[in-house]
This record gives sequence, C-alpha cells and structure tokens, in this order.
Amino acid sequence: MNVGLQAPAPADLADYAWKTALRARQAARQLAVATGAQKNDWLTRSAALIRQRTPALLEANERDCTAAQAAGLSAALIDRLRLTEARLEGIAQGLEQVATLPEPVGEIFASNVRPNGLLVTRVRVPLGVIFFIYESRPNVTVDAASLCVKSGNAVILRGGKEAKASNRALADLLVEALGDAGLPRDAVQLVDTTDREAIGHFLKLRDQIDLAIPRGGRALIERVTAEATMPVLKHFDGICHVYVDASADLKMAEDILVNGKCQRPGVCNATESLLVHRDVAGKFLPQVAKTLRAKKVELRGCERTRALVPEARPATEDDYRTEYLDLILSVKVVDSLDEAIEHIETFGSHHTDTIVTNDLSAANEFTARVDSAAVLVNASTRFNDGGEFGLGAEIGISTDRFHARGPCGLQELTSYKYVVHGSGQIRS
Amino acid sequence: MNVGLQAPAPADLADYAWKTALRARQAARQLAVATGAQKNDWLTRSAALIRQRTPALLEANERDCTAAQAAGLSAALIDRLRLTEARLEGIAQGLEQVATLPEPVGEIFASNVRPNGLLVTRVRVPLGVIFFIYESRPNVTVDAASLCVKSGNAVILRGGKEAKASNRALADLLVEALGDAGLPRDAVQLVDTTDREAIGHFLKLRDQIDLAIPRGGRALIERVTAEATMPVLKHFDGICHVYVDASADLKMAEDILVNGKCQRPGVCNATESLLVHRDVAGKFLPQVAKTLRAKKVELRGCERTRALVPEARPATEDDYRTEYLDLILSVKVVDSLDEAIEHIETFGSHHTDTIVTNDLSAANEFTARVDSAAVLVNASTRFNDGGEFGLGAEIGISTDRFHARGPCGLQELTSYKYVVHGSGQIRS
Repeated sequence: MNVGLQAPAPADLADYAWKTALRARQAARQLAVATGAQKNDWLTRSAALIRQRTPALLEANERDCTAAQAAGLSAALIDRLRLTEARLEGIAQGLEQVATLPEPVGEIFASNVRPNGLLVTRVRVPLGVIFFIYESRPNVTVDAASLCVKSGNAVILRGGKEAKASNRALADLLVEALGDAGLPRDAVQLVDTTDREAIGHFLKLRDQIDLAIPRGGRALIERVTAEATMPVLKHFDGICHVYVDASADLKMAEDILVNGKCQRPGVCNATESLLVHRDVAGKFLPQVAKTLRAKKVELRGCERTRALVPEARPATEDDYRTEYLDLILSVKVVDSLDEAIEHIETFGSHHTDTIVTNDLSAANEFTARVDSAAVLVNASTRFNDGGEFGLGAEIGISTDRFHARGPCGLQELTSYKYVVHGSGQIRS
Repeated sequence: MNVGLQAPAPADLADYAWKTALRARQAARQLAVATGAQKNDWLTRSAALIRQRTPALLEANERDCTAAQAAGLSAALIDRLRLTEARLEGIAQGLEQVATLPEPVGEIFASNVRPNGLLVTRVRVPLGVIFFIYESRPNVTVDAASLCVKSGNAVILRGGKEAKASNRALADLLVEALGDAGLPRDAVQLVDTTDREAIGHFLKLRDQIDLAIPRGGRALIERVTAEATMPVLKHFDGICHVYVDASADLKMAEDILVNGKCQRPGVCNATESLLVHRDVAGKFLPQVAKTLRAKKVELRGCERTRALVPEARPATEDDYRTEYLDLILSVKVVDSLDEAIEHIETFGSHHTDTIVTNDLSAANEFTARVDSAAVLVNASTRFNDGGEFGLGAEIGISTDRFHARGPCGLQELTSYKYVVHGSGQIRS
C-alpha cells in the first residue's frame, strides 16, 4: 500500500500534490530504464492478483455502489460504477493483453548516417510523469495504469469520488504487484483525496508533471485545459458524419450509416449526422428512414430531407453542432461534395468522418480536405478506435493536433531522444 | 503588401489579434491542400526578390541600425541586427535550400492492413496556424516563414522592435511572392505593432492558433509559456556536458572538448561543463588546461580540479547550473560513471551531453540514463543541430518532451491524420 499517501487536510493540498509528484518523478527515472520483461511481469502479476482478490474487490465496489444508491445516482451511472466477476476477468485479461504488446521504450524508429560518419538515431523514451484525471468507471484505474507504466511513465491517478473504495482496492493491488516485480511502488499513485481543489494543485506543477490527461465529460476536460500549466491530451466530442456521395453504393451506405448510428450510440465515434448528395437523396433517404425507424432512431432534417421523409423533425443549426450520444440523427441534403466538406468543417468536431463513394476523385478530395483525426472511405465511423486501428490498446482518442491525434496507444505516451554514435567527430 | 495590417491603437489590440488570427486560419485551410510545387515556387520567387531588392532591403535595415545606435544598443546587438549583401545572399540561398527538401505534407509515414481488410494509414498534415515570436535578427523572419509555409502552416510573425523596418521589408516581399505563386497572401503575416501587449492577446487565441514558438532569451520564453493557452515549443538553455570516462582516448576527448567549448561559444549546444573520471584526471586535466589557456578559456573547478590545475578558479554550485555562452568552462572530477550521470541529471538542462569512452557498457549506460534531447558518444556537443542531424533546416532546438524534442525541422511542424480505406466494412 502507498503508505505515504494519507488523505490530507485541504490546507495541505499544495504540499500533498508536490510530494506526490516528486515521488512520481523519482519512480519515473527508475521506470525509464526498467526492462520490458519487468513491466510485463508486473502486468501479469496484477492480473493474477485481480483474480485472486475478486471477492475483496467486489466487496469494496459494493460499498461504492451502496453509497451511490443512497446518494440517488442514476441507474446508468451505477451500472458504469459496478464491478462484476465477469468485468474483473475482463480487466485482468486487458492487463495480459497489454503484456503481449511490443515494448515501446528503446525502439529506434528513425536513423541516418551523416557524411562524416555520425550515426544519428531517434530512440523512443517515456514522457515521464502523467497525471490522469477520470470519472466514475473503476476499470479505468487499471487500464490507464497499465498503458502508462508499460510505456515507462509514472502515473498519478485521480478517479471520481463515486468509485473511491473500488479505485483504492485496485490501486493497492497494482502497487503491491509493482513491488513484487521489483519496480518502484510510486510508479502508480492514486490521489487519496477527492477534494476537487487537489486537481488544481497538481495542474500547477509544470516541472514535475509532463502530461495531464483528462478523461470524462466536457466540463472536466475544459477545467483541466484551462488550469493546466503542462501539456494536456484532450478528447472532446465526436460530431461524426457520414456523407453519401452521388456515386455511392446505396446498400453499402445504408449498412455504414446504420452501423455508425446504432451499433453503440453512446460513444464518441458514433455517427451523429448524415449528409446526402441531392442526386441520390430521393432514392436513399426514404429507404434508410424506414430501416432507422425500425431501430427507433429519431431523424432531424433540413427542408429537403423532410420533403422526402415527412416524419423527420426540422433540424436547427444547433442540431448540426450536437453530439447526441443517443438514437438521434441529423440529416442534410447537399448539392455537392464541396458543400458536404464545408458543412463538416463548419459544424463537425474534427473527430471522425466518412465518405461513401465509388468516385476516386471524390474520395481523394474528401480525405485531403476534411481535417479530422480520422477520415474514412467506405467504412463505419465506429472504426476510429485504438484496437480497430491496430494500436493494441488505447488511453483515449485525441482531438488535439499536437503530439498525438486520434487513438492514443503506447507510442503516443512516449517521447524520444537523439542518440548519436561517433568516433571522435568534431564540427568544423 | 498586407494592406489589412495597419498598426492598431492599443485599445484595439484584442480585435487586431483576433482578425489577424482569423485571416491566418483561412489561409491555413488553403495552404493545407497546396502542392509542393506551389510552395517551392514561392520559395524560389522569394529568393529572387531578395536578390532583386537588395538595395531597398539594405536601406530599410540601415534605418533600423541607425535607430539602434541612437538608442545606445551594444555593438554585438547591432551586429546581429545588420544585414549585408552577403547575409542577404545567405538568406536567399536558405530559401532555395528549403525548396530542395522533401515535401512533408501528405506523406504516409505508417500504415497497416487490418484482418477485416481496412487499410489504416497515417498521413502527415500541417499543424495549422503558428505564432512565431522572436527577437532581433531579421533573417529569422525569412527562415521561420519558409519552414512554416513549406510544412503547410500559416504563420503570424512577431519580431523585435529593433528590426521593425527590416522585418517589414522582408515580410512584404514574402507576401508579394505568395500572391505571385498563387498562394494565400495571409499565409505570412507580420504583426505590425511592437506593443508588447499585443503578444498577450495572440496567446489567448487557443482556438485560432495551434502552436506558439518563442525564440529568444529566457525572459521571452518564460513569458510566452506562462501566458499561452495553446501548445508552446520552447527552447531553453543548453548546459551541455562532456564526460571523459576512464577508458577515453584522451586525444579524442581533448579535441571534442575544445571543439564543443571554443568553436562557437555563444550558442546553446556549446559545451559548458567538463566532467572527468578520477582515474584519468591527473593525465587529462593539466594537458587540456594548457590547450584551453592558449584559447583564453577560463576554468572554474572543484577542489580536485584545482589541485591539478592551480590557475582554475573555485567553482560554485551556481557555476554548474550556468549556461555561460562564453569562453568559460566549469570542471568537476568524478569518482564514477554513476556520479557523472547523477551530476548531469541534477545540474544539466537536458539539452546535449557527450560521453568520451572506449567502454561499450559505459556508452550504453550513459545513453540509456542521461535524459537529454541529444546524447552523444565520442562526438562534439556542437552536432546537436538540425542541419548536422540531417533534417535539412531547423526552426529551433526543442527542450520539451512533448511532440518534438531536439532539432525541429519540417516534420516537427506537422501533425497527422488517420486516413482509412475500406470497402463497406462495419463493426460487429
């Protein structure tokens, strides 16, 4: 257990944050030179401990769930909070999966030999200390720690107060496994206070913390962005579009749209808005509306949409700017590819956008001009995901342009240094 | 000429910054899809205009130099400010050199095919809008603009007031060449006011400006870092070390040390501190002190150094933390490689550090544990430079860990997006 981490009095929060970060920095220096085998040993030991301690973990979680019920939290929130035997097994398997991923630290990912014989290499190294702030789901405690530590970073975790007992039980186990694997126990520290002031103190420590990652609702992300003095890796809303081009295979378009909207509507890569070229709107919209109606999707459309689909409600400008995260779809008929791209650039959130087309030049123009983290041709928006893109695992989907964009896996949690091998070269 | 850019009244600075950034954003959208040929055409046209307008450029520069003399600026500062025919030719050749570099935008730098047939590619795209803040040297106006625009970014330039007329003349010429090359003229905008308040207004525009790059003294960089709401690419001090290991070839060590200290002492990758293993100190220090004395280098050493080199002044802790940028060298005798690494991590600035050794395990340990942007084996610290590392050109040497570390060339001024090619895939 992190014996140094006692919940501090509010007056001591600044000092608490400082000392926690200092311990993390020390741990990060050791972790940066740990071998992949040691880190994988930690991951598999942690998985074993989760299976071994399942009854105690469920008991801790039960305390959180009972408190949440007493506090009147919604059934949906309590479901997110709840751990079950199956969910714990999933978390353990997630740890084992991360252990199978290639070691990121030390990889030489670029090199060149200079005319004077110098061998210039770029070597992947950890970022250092990561401050991870998240909301209710306790599995994030383990997911975030596994990716941060595997990429050689020390992590300071600050979870939601609803999951306090669950997070503590999981973090204690991760720390115990760090010790067993011969790694610094301060590589994973759970912030013990749920005092919201504490976050602000950590966000001031520019020299001690290399990166802040907020994961949660817009209010949390905006607060962290506003207060942080270090870089922040954000993931904001996904207002994701499917554009059905004049040349689209309409059966393919329908499958892609229905998958994007209905397969899991509550996530950031779900489709929120449909744009249809006027040449195919008459054929496509009535047919797809029928399918969506059967799946209980509410449509909100422009005038031309409503002429073709009378049950659609009128769409306002706000609709085109809204991430519904629900079975609602905004629809607009456009005159051209150009209008579709302009609409996406104006109303979208630069997250994930798809064109369905059989026209090569339209596909090229769409992928060149749509400035989103992921731009897809003839595939569902739901694919913008670290696992689906082959990253192995992800810590979030960045909507930033700096450092990392789109799904962030192990590589995106690293920096690099130049390591240069000479034989006595001097500069003339 | 940028007719929209009139020096505003201080009360209008916020509005001025906003409108300038908005124009830059528009230009960036067009520039992002410009071809390499267009951008290279702009670079060669700009070079031609510099040669053609040399008399007018020298005249504008003369006004700056006269004003600087009247204001009592030092001869060194005035020398940095001064343009000559030869320097302008150098600037023109720099533009032509950037034109020869490979096109960074659109490069697919990673890809993988997923089991379901999706082709996932990562494509280099511009960052967007860059705010570049610099001090006296007018050539930076051209260098910065050339790299930003070649990498597809719009740039807002804010130079020092001493170079006001020179910067204006150079920027007008760059803008004229943008128009001639069919590129948006707002891709390069020079901030017309030298009111220091203006910088603060630009630094608030998180949604309009994607990156701020301060280039100059520590005070400027610290101000920009403190006020910026967008990412900042910093380059702080270089407190660069040469560590002479017990197994070093002492002739090689002397060459590397003298080159690092004396070849150009005023730059960030100059050597500032020498660490010598005790086993070779007795042989190495008296010999190298003789060489350095002949080159007028002042030595400041620890007790053991002074026992071997009596003319060395005593070094304080502050000496070991100082970037002299002058013919001064701090010296310390250490008991082990471990002590050398600890010293570098404690007193260095994570910029550039060299080990001179013939011991493979010492080289490996040094490169693994020294956490600097560039770690060299048997080569001068002076090599940490974009040109020397093969980047073609550089906009600075980042001391950050996030996004870009070490020399920053065209690639480091880009972001990426995922472009995914499917044939109707949906997620199950």
